[in-house]
Amino acid sequence: MTATEVRVWAPTGLPEVAPGDDLAGLLVALLRDDADAAPEHALRDGDVLVLTSKVVSKAEGRVVAADDREQAITDETVRVVATREHATGVTRIVENRLGLVMAAAGVDASNTPAGTVLLLPLDPDGTARHLRAALQAAFGVRLGLVLTDTAGRPWRQGVTDLAIGAAGVEVLDDLRGQVDSFGRPLVMTVAAVADEIASAAELVKGKAAGRPLAVVRGLAHLVTVDDGPGARVLVRTGDDDMFHLGSAEAYAQGWKDALERPDEAPRE
Amino acid sequence: MTATEVRVWAPTGLPEVAPGDDLAGLLVALLRDDADAAPEHALRDGDVLVLTSKVVSKAEGRVVAADDREQAITDETVRVVATREHATGVTRIVENRLGLVMAAAGVDASNTPAGTVLLLPLDPDGTARHLRAALQAAFGVRLGLVLTDTAGRPWRQGVTDLAIGAAGVEVLDDLRGQVDSFGRPLVMTVAAVADEIASAAELVKGKAAGRPLAVVRGLAHLVTVDDGPGARVLVRTGDDDMFHLGSAEAYAQGWKDALERPDEAPRE
Repeated sequence: MTATEVRVWAPTGLPEVAPGDDLAGLLVALLRDDADAAPEHALRDGDVLVLTSKVVSKAEGRVVAADDREQAITDETVRVVATREHATGVTRIVENRLGLVMAAAGVDASNTPAGTVLLLPLDPDGTARHLRAALQAAFGVRLGLVLTDTAGRPWRQGVTDLAIGAAGVEVLDDLRGQVDSFGRPLVMTVAAVADEIASAAELVKGKAAGRPLAVVRGLAHLVTVDDGPGARVLVRTGDDDMFHLGSAEAYAQGWKDALERPDEAPRE
Repeated sequence: MTATEVRVWAPTGLPEVAPGDDLAGLLVALLRDDADAAPEHALRDGDVLVLTSKVVSKAEGRVVAADDREQAITDETVRVVATREHATGVTRIVENRLGLVMAAAGVDASNTPAGTVLLLPLDPDGTARHLRAALQAAFGVRLGLVLTDTAGRPWRQGVTDLAIGAAGVEVLDDLRGQVDSFGRPLVMTVAAVADEIASAAELVKGKAAGRPLAVVRGLAHLVTVDDGPGARVLVRTGDDDMFHLGSAEAYAQGWKDALERPDEAPRE
């Protein structure tokens, strides 16, 4: 099943979020105000709420002094994938404790007060479940909830938004049982719909506009009764990951190992 | 500037496309029929049309016998990035002649008659410009046009849609002159909006539904008078590409080079 029309809008007016704020309460107020101004925006069964994870980080107080940025990145890092020197320092691309491979472990200096940087939320899938429950209770409808962050990608210029937390929405739409227009089974086709939802929402939220929440209507077929496995299942690491080291890092490791044990076979 | 609401829909009824078909004419007829059935769907200035590149390949006759699939992949390949053996053969992840890094060079066996595979279009940006001109002439409005394909990504499960051709639409939205909600300049922020548009469109087109075209309304600020540079500028290759070889391939190369010239410094 596929949507026939999707609408995405971003209510304006969420106040700046501070540590300890009741984020669910703020979102409920925002969505009520939006529905008062535009009655067709009143939430319905099957709507998906897409929230920038940055506001979750703020509510959780995941702010550290900019001087502690490098240490914060180290603390968030599980594994260094690649590093690159540039004019103002070294960029580390790492796998962080959420399994996400990101520059600077996802530690970000934009949209946070001067002299501070923001870390990613502690448990995006857990927060997505919590917010979903609170919003469903407030509005009496079945909702999906996606938390997003912004990341670069190998081989492509520019950044896009990804799902880093999810509740009540399919994150991977497995089409492998379906057939194509010639009646042949679709193989190898698992669509990362939560990432596509994150990208669609970014088109209306924007980076500078102060609209961290978007509502996506028209994807009720992807909204589930259960919270589901969360965005964690979008992470691909381990044996399945053909790019677990940057090319330069892997090359250097191969060189080093060859000189240390030249009589063995290459064993990455 | 950012959109406040985006709508995406996918007209139904495009016939199966065959080599030599007048694709622009088929799309005009599809969009006229859709507007007859739903008058609010009549195209407006600033609408973006998002078309699956597969139908362009079909119109161009980019079909080869499945028995020639491996040779076709070789012919489309500029550079092998990584290979992986599995139960039924070897998957090659390569940079193709369009600069896209994709499994099997983008050669695809779904939604094409049994016994055949489809190659990517010859010149997606050129075709995007051609289709844009034809559709603008037919409807008398300013449009953007994006051609899409589906690809996997390092570190993420599932596939998403990408822009592989574009005309009349910003493909990279450079926010670096803007400020965040604290008045600080946004740095490092160039959004790959054409890829986000491709992903948003995929949510309504689907893979199995026979709806290869979507209309995206609400992004007129991204639609340009000129055709612009096309989706080619989304490609990141060369020195800027930290993942130009798979980890195993880079490791093996380092090992080999170390044994061949152990007195030199590692030079990837």
